[in-house]
Amino acid sequence: MRNTTMLTDLYQLTMMQGLYLAGKDSQEAVFDRFYRTNPCNGGYSIVAGLEHVIEYIKNIKFTNDDIEYLRGLTIFGEEFLDYLKKFRFTGDIWAIPEGTVVFPGEPLLRVHAKKNEALFIETALSMFLNHESLIATKASRVRWAAKDDFLMEFGLRRAQGTDAALYGARAAVIGGFNATSDVLAGKLFGIPVVGTMAHSWVMSFDNELAAFREYAKRYPDNALLLVDTYDTIGSGVPNAIKVFTEMKAAGVLKRYGIRLDSGDLAYLSKAARTMLDEAGFIGATITASNDLDEHLIADLKLQEAKISSWGVGTKLITSEGCSALGGVYKMAAEIGTETIPKMKISNNVEKITNPGIKKVFRIYDKKSGKIRADIITLADEEIGTTDDLALMDPTHSWKRMTLPRGSFTVQELLVPIFRNGECVYNQPDLLAIQQYAKEQLLTLWDEYRRLVNPHVMKIDLSDKLYDLKKELIFCTAQKQTSL
Amino acid sequence: MRNTTMLTDLYQLTMMQGLYLAGKDSQEAVFDRFYRTNPCNGGYSIVAGLEHVIEYIKNIKFTNDDIEYLRGLTIFGEEFLDYLKKFRFTGDIWAIPEGTVVFPGEPLLRVHAKKNEALFIETALSMFLNHESLIATKASRVRWAAKDDFLMEFGLRRAQGTDAALYGARAAVIGGFNATSDVLAGKLFGIPVVGTMAHSWVMSFDNELAAFREYAKRYPDNALLLVDTYDTIGSGVPNAIKVFTEMKAAGVLKRYGIRLDSGDLAYLSKAARTMLDEAGFIGATITASNDLDEHLIADLKLQEAKISSWGVGTKLITSEGCSALGGVYKMAAEIGTETIPKMKISNNVEKITNPGIKKVFRIYDKKSGKIRADIITLADEEIGTTDDLALMDPTHSWKRMTLPRGSFTVQELLVPIFRNGECVYNQPDLLAIQQYAKEQLLTLWDEYRRLVNPHVMKIDLSDKLYDLKKELIFCTAQKQTSL
Repeated sequence: MRNTTMLTDLYQLTMMQGLYLAGKDSQEAVFDRFYRTNPCNGGYSIVAGLEHVIEYIKNIKFTNDDIEYLRGLTIFGEEFLDYLKKFRFTGDIWAIPEGTVVFPGEPLLRVHAKKNEALFIETALSMFLNHESLIATKASRVRWAAKDDFLMEFGLRRAQGTDAALYGARAAVIGGFNATSDVLAGKLFGIPVVGTMAHSWVMSFDNELAAFREYAKRYPDNALLLVDTYDTIGSGVPNAIKVFTEMKAAGVLKRYGIRLDSGDLAYLSKAARTMLDEAGFIGATITASNDLDEHLIADLKLQEAKISSWGVGTKLITSEGCSALGGVYKMAAEIGTETIPKMKISNNVEKITNPGIKKVFRIYDKKSGKIRADIITLADEEIGTTDDLALMDPTHSWKRMTLPRGSFTVQELLVPIFRNGECVYNQPDLLAIQQYAKEQLLTLWDEYRRLVNPHVMKIDLSDKLYDLKKELIFCTAQKQTSL
Repeated sequence: MRNTTMLTDLYQLTMMQGLYLAGKDSQEAVFDRFYRTNPCNGGYSIVAGLEHVIEYIKNIKFTNDDIEYLRGLTIFGEEFLDYLKKFRFTGDIWAIPEGTVVFPGEPLLRVHAKKNEALFIETALSMFLNHESLIATKASRVRWAAKDDFLMEFGLRRAQGTDAALYGARAAVIGGFNATSDVLAGKLFGIPVVGTMAHSWVMSFDNELAAFREYAKRYPDNALLLVDTYDTIGSGVPNAIKVFTEMKAAGVLKRYGIRLDSGDLAYLSKAARTMLDEAGFIGATITASNDLDEHLIADLKLQEAKISSWGVGTKLITSEGCSALGGVYKMAAEIGTETIPKMKISNNVEKITNPGIKKVFRIYDKKSGKIRADIITLADEEIGTTDDLALMDPTHSWKRMTLPRGSFTVQELLVPIFRNGECVYNQPDLLAIQQYAKEQLLTLWDEYRRLVNPHVMKIDLSDKLYDLKKELIFCTAQKQTSL
């Protein structure tokens, strides 16, 4: 395990020293992590990255080497460097579990810790969750387009570094992918690994037919032949059919098919399907790859392309077109003899945060099991099912709606992850998270899942939280200018 | 150092076993790495990632744990697993050094090795170079827009994983950035680390003025105050001016200024500049951040925003809008008693590769020092300066141009990196690479550097290479269908 303790922004350390010297480092504070916009103009995100965060927090420890480097910067005093040597995370964290469907503005993770500990973990924690949630969400979009087809993550060679590849492959599985080509990701996370052949295999033999024969001889259980090295319809598919015919005659035909990696995938897959079927190989799968994403797959489906297995690389592993999830981490309260709610006001209205210690409740329609709304409340509020429930749209507060009791169920989303610095969460295994994410996506009406112009989920604030926010906007602005 | 030996696609290993069993694993082969399109619709790329590749190749070694995992896949035989235990890279690599300006279609790296070794390294090698070259190129575009301003890499919390952050910060320096906020990147690569304060600092004190005072007291050498927590013009800048006035009176005013992180950066920077200047603080720097990229910075410059220091995060570290460089790695020749040039033909014309063992020559205009063209030749060709030089456009082969001798100079771009598995390259330090990249960018006319619709560099093929390619296209297609 690599030491990632120093994976932080310098300003966290300078602020920590400042708070330490001001005697404020142990002030208890509450921070929220949330994001403002769904990736890819979509209707939701899927949480991923929590396992990575847990590993990171458990292993926080400045080495002598780290301290030596920091000393060399001539910014930090010896007293603070001594303090860092003993520095650990000893606070509490609540989070929404991996695989959960979430929406903009909701607290996805809440840290309750000494100010310095809460500050310190911000950067790495945000990065892991931003990255992995982004890829899980992108993968779920590809899954939506591909329906029940087989989906393979092929992005390793185009990923933004080793961790992008590894944790991206894991996130892709959470979002609904079946397998990866990445051997190390397979080893680390138990993801099924898959692969066929490259063009260089075909070019390594005297001719395409010889290359296919040799491959089929070695891997009769997985005779997936790459047919586009020279001429897909002119030589690739006919040569594949010759080999399948030979395998059939020898009684060794099991899992077999072709892969298309260039050209017009709609046309070529249909032509290849016809050729394979006419030769009696209706069991041959057709796999496609080549800069695919959810929109291309949806379009190929619309064209009735005969493809049932998809290798998705670059555009999944980098989430092309939307390469970051802008999750942020903001102070929501300070806790002393009483809890003081805090907020950032900002000149950008959309950057104003929700103050106070908060919870998130999800309201499901009882009959369909679909999400009706999420409600952000203050920590001392509860939402029950015995009364009617009034929903209020916080951007258009005149819009109100009442759900009659008995018509809905309620779930609280944030669960305890760390308590006094100890992990109290039993992390499910990856396939369980994948299954949970699949069930989670079923709680969304298709209107929220569609790729273009999805419906916007209602995220309400409780009246109590809404009033606190209004009051603080007024008072905080007053306070700065009245000095 | 993390073991990344298994960071490869499964198909490399299945092909390797196939070649091993077919007795072809030790066949000498030549592979080229090149890319087809410049990132961000730009006019060039900058090479980065070679240091990472060298580290990776030096450390290839399957552990017992790796072998155990592979055995469990039930795809590999014991004989091949034994072979993997002893597997190392023993071949030769040539590459274009980090910091060099390059263009589509050129061989940027050439591997000459046993087929299995050349196959094995493809995936990780491609990923490191794709990722880091992409970020270096993006950074150089930001540098172009920001002219001589101070540029800080602020992307850690939005990066696609740990390595994206670390190697991205390094690549940003190659592309012209001055500093990073990422402490671990600073430690690993010796990059200057910088930072100011977050909104949470301001919110940790009774009011903004108290927060600024405390910060200035602790860091008088670096009093950069974040002024947008509540109201930039109404409270942030006036409070900063109060603190600067106090510092001046106390005789401790050194490096100081403000940071804007939201709102209309053009308007706010101009208003803040006027307020600072009128208060006598013409030495105050104005730093801006908030989803910046090269286009926004260019536009702010056009509006005469009063910003001289830029924090660029998400859109740099993920290269938003162009999140991958599509570098590929293709077999170019097999070497036995003679060299057999190889190529991939493909149904997509732009995917046809250049066959044979190749070199790249760069032709500079002698007077201006600017690049006139690059010429890809076969390995046994030389380009001298004693004769006139005929250039031929390979896509429009009727277009020819002659450079008179004496008017140009010639440089060969590929240099030896590994020889018989040993690294023979002295890797320059990061600041030397940055300086070299800066000089390299000066060999481009501005028309190739501009952000929109840049000029397209001429990449010629020598007549000999062009003829070989034409011949092979014809023969290879013939060969597959005539069976």
